[in-house]
Amino acid sequence: MFKKVLIANRGEIAVRIIRACRELGIHTVAVYSTADRNALHAQIADEAVCIGPAPSKDSYLNVRAIISACEITGADAIHPGFGFLSENPSFARMCEKCGITFIGPRAESIEMLGDKAQAKETMKEAGVPVIMGSDGAISNIHAAHTLARDLGYPVMVKASAGGGGRGIRIVHSDDELEAQMTAAKQEALACFGNDEIYIEKFIEDPKHIEIQILADNYGDVIYLGERDCSMQRRNQKVLEEAPSPASFMNEELRAKMGKAACTAAKVCGYRNAGTIEFLVDKNGEFYFMEMNTRIQVEHPITEAVTGVDLVKQQLLIASGQRLSIKQEDIKLTGHAIECRINAENPLLDFRPSPGRIKSLFIPGGPGIRVDTAVYQGYEIPPYYDSMIGKLIVHGKNREEAIAKMTWALSEFIVDGVATNVDFQLKLIRRPEFLEGNYDNGFLNRTDILADERSKE
Amino acid sequence: MFKKVLIANRGEIAVRIIRACRELGIHTVAVYSTADRNALHAQIADEAVCIGPAPSKDSYLNVRAIISACEITGADAIHPGFGFLSENPSFARMCEKCGITFIGPRAESIEMLGDKAQAKETMKEAGVPVIMGSDGAISNIHAAHTLARDLGYPVMVKASAGGGGRGIRIVHSDDELEAQMTAAKQEALACFGNDEIYIEKFIEDPKHIEIQILADNYGDVIYLGERDCSMQRRNQKVLEEAPSPASFMNEELRAKMGKAACTAAKVCGYRNAGTIEFLVDKNGEFYFMEMNTRIQVEHPITEAVTGVDLVKQQLLIASGQRLSIKQEDIKLTGHAIECRINAENPLLDFRPSPGRIKSLFIPGGPGIRVDTAVYQGYEIPPYYDSMIGKLIVHGKNREEAIAKMTWALSEFIVDGVATNVDFQLKLIRRPEFLEGNYDNGFLNRTDILADERSKE
Repeated sequence: MFKKVLIANRGEIAVRIIRACRELGIHTVAVYSTADRNALHAQIADEAVCIGPAPSKDSYLNVRAIISACEITGADAIHPGFGFLSENPSFARMCEKCGITFIGPRAESIEMLGDKAQAKETMKEAGVPVIMGSDGAISNIHAAHTLARDLGYPVMVKASAGGGGRGIRIVHSDDELEAQMTAAKQEALACFGNDEIYIEKFIEDPKHIEIQILADNYGDVIYLGERDCSMQRRNQKVLEEAPSPASFMNEELRAKMGKAACTAAKVCGYRNAGTIEFLVDKNGEFYFMEMNTRIQVEHPITEAVTGVDLVKQQLLIASGQRLSIKQEDIKLTGHAIECRINAENPLLDFRPSPGRIKSLFIPGGPGIRVDTAVYQGYEIPPYYDSMIGKLIVHGKNREEAIAKMTWALSEFIVDGVATNVDFQLKLIRRPEFLEGNYDNGFLNRTDILADERSKE
Repeated sequence: MFKKVLIANRGEIAVRIIRACRELGIHTVAVYSTADRNALHAQIADEAVCIGPAPSKDSYLNVRAIISACEITGADAIHPGFGFLSENPSFARMCEKCGITFIGPRAESIEMLGDKAQAKETMKEAGVPVIMGSDGAISNIHAAHTLARDLGYPVMVKASAGGGGRGIRIVHSDDELEAQMTAAKQEALACFGNDEIYIEKFIEDPKHIEIQILADNYGDVIYLGERDCSMQRRNQKVLEEAPSPASFMNEELRAKMGKAACTAAKVCGYRNAGTIEFLVDKNGEFYFMEMNTRIQVEHPITEAVTGVDLVKQQLLIASGQRLSIKQEDIKLTGHAIECRINAENPLLDFRPSPGRIKSLFIPGGPGIRVDTAVYQGYEIPPYYDSMIGKLIVHGKNREEAIAKMTWALSEFIVDGVATNVDFQLKLIRRPEFLEGNYDNGFLNRTDILADERSKE
């Protein structure tokens, strides 16, 4: 096992990793920016090294400074957490070169999975379902008709150079196809200076459901059930649950998705913890979106329902141990929900709200877990993302988990900065949430705070 | 189910009960003394009623004021928590008379079990092992010899009027008996003005192991495993674990003790949650000590290893529901430890240390539960017991639980008042603790802080 691990991150995930290291008897080194002088992670680690000023490029993204901190302190491994350098293959490679273990997959896996087109191709070849479409650009209208019929309507016509939802047309029948292709081409040319378009099967109101996997260095891979992360606002996850409350979810589909996820990991020679994200349609058909090659923000809900400490597993795997958990050991118990607690103002378009926490009360009690790095009197710096904590509840079933989340959110007090605590409370009271079949678009089309706005 | 429950208590247990009520959709009424104006329990309940000034007899023990608060607010049940009125049969009776459900056993059970001699007699008749001895006072030396040989040496010669450890003699053989009886009589006469003595089997270095039971109103009783509460300082529990780490503990003994506990409950017509305390000798022979007719401070470790919410069960049972958990549903998972966090100075003979909490950091993360009612800026009043929180950890096994407790205690910060956090940290690092066979006398004969004292 490692003697000393450097945590190349900040905030609650840095604290989370330090705690896992402690539990395994590993010494910890925190790195921090000058803006994070009073940050909790720098206080609770065995050692702490300042790696530069606040803009992340000068500190938490500063590869040189981080490798130096490792060498100065004699750390033999680096845990990158999520964000920052966690999915940077050249950082992983640099660690290897310096004889420091990067706690994550090999650089080649990160690289391959980082290229979305290549990843999709690899998965398709391995038999993992992907969203079918034209291989590259398509212009011939006859070929388009044939393809669209093969895929089955509705299909999506997308600008190859597109982004931000522009240059996308949904086509529901043969009759519409040609006109929509022409319109999409014109829009693509106008927006991106490139009229290339491609066609893809359109997934109506999909859910984002992801599978957690663990892979050791010897080819063993297990899956740890799914997380439903469909509650997203502008592609930002807001609330996650395990297992998925979707009416189509069952043991059979879970196993099918789990096996597909394991195949995805195996085909990349994947090591360590990873997450395979799928889009799932209303019939439970699932399609590979991408694989995240790191620990996820929402990992605690999987820990709650499986009883597996994922961060400890990351450390054990990276140190060369074989997976001691077998697939048949993974049993899901109860239901877990995570609400991300952000310092932001939901009434001002979720604008970040940094500042000093004047008063703080964090709920506790049976089935409540709060992962946070803030404390009363702490000044939230304006330089980083606005997540200040995660409230995770674990109940016997979804009903109990929601009841726990309700009282826990009601008790949560953060004074001095705006937060989304009330927003989350309103959200979990919505009939669409309670019913469970909400899709990825729900939060984009629904104004949870309409009541409050009308009051003003 | 109840519509509104009044919680006749304060501190962390009041908060714990409020949370359980919320989870069941029950409205809550807190009562508070004038000294507890800023107490958390009064803030988070749906309603709060001041019931008088600080001395408990004028508020938390003021039956009239509490019943009035119930009537004013329309509460249909009272949860007494522990301490205060929780084991007061006339309070339970008064509730009944006023048509308010007392969330606990019937007054007759409380009464019967409160009389230690009667309880012992009842248990003995029911076949629950009790510590054997003379039936009442003994003076005839021949009878004493016969009895002592029947019991098997060592035996204890005790003053009938005794207390506080005085008037007790341990006798190891026939040769010593007469002399020790004479000495005990003289001491008893000198100390208590009464020379009556009795003889009891002496249990060498026993452990305090208690069994949690749940009994519904229809005669169904289940046991939920044991708690080892042998880590006591002057009869005050300091740290508890479930299951017991004693080398003699195994499935067979657990079932035997569990069945004895259920018998004990049944013979009293017991209802609701209760705890049967046993003394257990080094061979795993166990003897009934007493039954506590209320929720215990250390209930969360049982909740952790069984997954059963005991306070919710109390509410469900009191509302007339049948036990939905069967004995075969109770499976112990992992290991849980609770450290009581007290505002006290271990270097000044554990003198209470009330005052303002200037700075507070409560650890969190996987497997950590903290039940507390304090917050940063809170002023701990001098009128109540010094426990300000309970740190409960749950790990896959005892080793992991101890590792969790170690980092969690290391992170715990309470500034402004003295606490026993460092004492607990030293305690869990002791070889005697790690080894697990520590007995009830360990903390009385061991100076955990000897190092620090010698430093001064």
